[in-house]
Amino acid sequence: MATIFTKIINGEIPCYKIAEDENNFAFLDINPLTEGHTLVVPKLQEPESDYLFDLDDAAYLSLMSFAKKVAKAISETIDCKRVGVAVMGMEVPHVHVHLIPINKESDMVISNPKKNISAEEMNAIAKGIASNYKKFF
Amino acid sequence: MATIFTKIINGEIPCYKIAEDENNFAFLDINPLTEGHTLVVPKLQEPESDYLFDLDDAAYLSLMSFAKKVAKAISETIDCKRVGVAVMGMEVPHVHVHLIPINKESDMVISNPKKNISAEEMNAIAKGIASNYKKFF
Repeated sequence: MATIFTKIINGEIPCYKIAEDENNFAFLDINPLTEGHTLVVPKLQEPESDYLFDLDDAAYLSLMSFAKKVAKAISETIDCKRVGVAVMGMEVPHVHVHLIPINKESDMVISNPKKNISAEEMNAIAKGIASNYKKFF
Repeated sequence: MATIFTKIINGEIPCYKIAEDENNFAFLDINPLTEGHTLVVPKLQEPESDYLFDLDDAAYLSLMSFAKKVAKAISETIDCKRVGVAVMGMEVPHVHVHLIPINKESDMVISNPKKNISAEEMNAIAKGIASNYKKFF
């Protein structure tokens, strides 16, 4: 069955898109821990598994390569010390990697309250990261 | 300067070793969030950066490939739904990936109290994961 992420990838549900390549897609998390919190997902139409390490090696390495590029674009756009990585994957049944701009470790505490960021700001953040992604890759 | 992880890799400081390959090394986190919580690190003698995404593409993909193998060995050993991934990297100035066996998302909350696991148990856990790693890879 198509997941909400598949619908986002297919354009059936709107998102704050960052970038895509042949195999993968990146967009802002609508419940961000910090400004610029991004989800990176493989373009699977009907994911056979929602578990990162069930991806075959090629799909896994393609996803992680793409995540590195997106992380660079985030770093260039958002004022942060670095971009943290988290993969839990129990919220949505579609493999996804969280890229979270952080200034301190506690920014990565996944139980932190989510930021309330206006649609306008989310749009501006996504455009900024997308623009830097295009500049570099 | 050699980091504590470099000293572990070089055998100057003991650890509960899981596995290693040409470029990478895995051992149990001594402050585990859950049983089997493992750190995967590149074998850098003098890390130029402690930031995952500063690794060059080859080193980065080598580390992530190794992490996938170690995660499989952890899954085969520890009773868990999956192995989560977290990279913050602000505690020790040497790139490291946390592999954390989880049964629910909240197991990944990095501010959770650390488990108190005896040296004997840690040894048994490490041996179990190491043995499964050898079986598969």
